[in-house]
Amino acid sequence: MTSPAYDANNIFAKILKGEIPSYPVYEDEHTVAIMDVMPQAPGHTLVLPKLPSRNILDADPSVLPHLITAVQKVAVAIQEAFDADGVYIAQFNEPAAGQTIFHLHFHVIPRHEGIALKPHAGRMEDGAILAENAKKIIEFLR
Amino acid sequence: MTSPAYDANNIFAKILKGEIPSYPVYEDEHTVAIMDVMPQAPGHTLVLPKLPSRNILDADPSVLPHLITAVQKVAVAIQEAFDADGVYIAQFNEPAAGQTIFHLHFHVIPRHEGIALKPHAGRMEDGAILAENAKKIIEFLR
Repeated sequence: MTSPAYDANNIFAKILKGEIPSYPVYEDEHTVAIMDVMPQAPGHTLVLPKLPSRNILDADPSVLPHLITAVQKVAVAIQEAFDADGVYIAQFNEPAAGQTIFHLHFHVIPRHEGIALKPHAGRMEDGAILAENAKKIIEFLR
Repeated sequence: MTSPAYDANNIFAKILKGEIPSYPVYEDEHTVAIMDVMPQAPGHTLVLPKLPSRNILDADPSVLPHLITAVQKVAVAIQEAFDADGVYIAQFNEPAAGQTIFHLHFHVIPRHEGIALKPHAGRMEDGAILAENAKKIIEFLR
């Protein structure tokens, strides 16, 4: 399999260019983290590199250390912000693995015992709830 | 939630000390990759740091760049070795998120369109099949 080329008009590329609004929780020189607008659980956050790549299969290896460092920070903050029993981290490459937006990203999702995840890319969450959850995470990232 | 302490007698710690055999596919100064003996799909590989940590929540941030670099190498090799349509990467923190062995590890799993994953930590695979799949991955890591 050869990966298709990066599409510079994917939703995350547009968010990174400021053409589409998002609910950001974290940003550094290399990385941003935003709320997933179709969360599988409250607090579901996406961590993405600023540099373009379709997924991890075609990513410049130099972006990955920055990305995983941000993933850890977000995971720790989310666990605290949502008093989670666990944190699920996932990264999907190509549609067969569940990828729906073709700019490399990690999912960071708080888990609670006995509460199943909602489907991936399911229902759009209310904006006020996303903004509130972003605020909670930002507090714990400080 | 405060994470429980690292248990130095977990299965991966014993594998790293050479006390339990495994099916290794990759090793560098900081990281090893081994076959999951209860694969969710043929080629299911685990990438783990040599340094102890329970999961990403308590990991020394300095181990993560090495770990994710190895994850990428393994993901690319697995995609080629199994002619996969996609690659699923996951990292579980605490039982509520599906963690069953308490030494930080990433799952790297080839995906094929229309073929569902088997359950996590399900049935033990035949050793000859694991050895054969390890060999395939090693070929593509070269």
